[in-house]
Amino acid sequence: MKLGRLNHIGVAVPDMEAARAFYRDSLGATEIGEPFDMIEQGVRVCFVDTPNGGTQVELLAPLGEDSPVSGFLGKNPLGGQHHLCFEVPDIAEARAEFEGQGKRILGPTRIGAHGTPIFFVHPKDMGGVLTEIMETPEGGH
Amino acid sequence: MKLGRLNHIGVAVPDMEAARAFYRDSLGATEIGEPFDMIEQGVRVCFVDTPNGGTQVELLAPLGEDSPVSGFLGKNPLGGQHHLCFEVPDIAEARAEFEGQGKRILGPTRIGAHGTPIFFVHPKDMGGVLTEIMETPEGGH
Repeated sequence: MKLGRLNHIGVAVPDMEAARAFYRDSLGATEIGEPFDMIEQGVRVCFVDTPNGGTQVELLAPLGEDSPVSGFLGKNPLGGQHHLCFEVPDIAEARAEFEGQGKRILGPTRIGAHGTPIFFVHPKDMGGVLTEIMETPEGGH
Repeated sequence: MKLGRLNHIGVAVPDMEAARAFYRDSLGATEIGEPFDMIEQGVRVCFVDTPNGGTQVELLAPLGEDSPVSGFLGKNPLGGQHHLCFEVPDIAEARAEFEGQGKRILGPTRIGAHGTPIFFVHPKDMGGVLTEIMETPEGGH
């Protein structure tokens, strides 16, 4: 596998609108997307752009108590850093490589928030970092 | 304040050489810097580059038991995401703004691993994210 761009960092937030206001008013972000629900993933998502098409911040709020973000927020009520997402040119090849390394992949390859295939690798096999692997989107983010 | 680039994400690691091997062999990173000690900060540091001058991963291993990273690793023995670092054009202006917002700044402004002035803001005032603010380095990273 060849390391691609750090597409985004996922940040869990307990309140999406408060988080968007924080990025706008405290950090001075100017490109804050509209939130949208990913119902199958159980999360509400909003991307904050950084300059020059750089790594995005993906704000993640839970949709319901079964959300994968709810457990994280139970331990970290203020929110916090949730995952890193690296791009790869070929998702199937990357998955086969991680499987060959004996790493635990969390669920099937599926379509992620950018509309390209993704999968997650267990943090216990990744130096404590929940890691999303995403096929590089065409045309930037 | 105007949000600048996401310069790097800090990842705490219990063993620097094992972490460098992981980024090389499991993730396919090809640009892995030489580690160096920041004795005043109590950390050993190594930057992993991502393509096209994108956001770096800053590997942080403790130097001694008093290291600020030691407490984190006590709670997260495998390592994990430690902080985010955003760039700003003017560090003094950014510090004054955060102070004006009543946010707790951790210690004085000092020279960071890229040789430019930095300060840290308390995660409890930043949505659970320990946040480093760095004056934009000249000439990229």
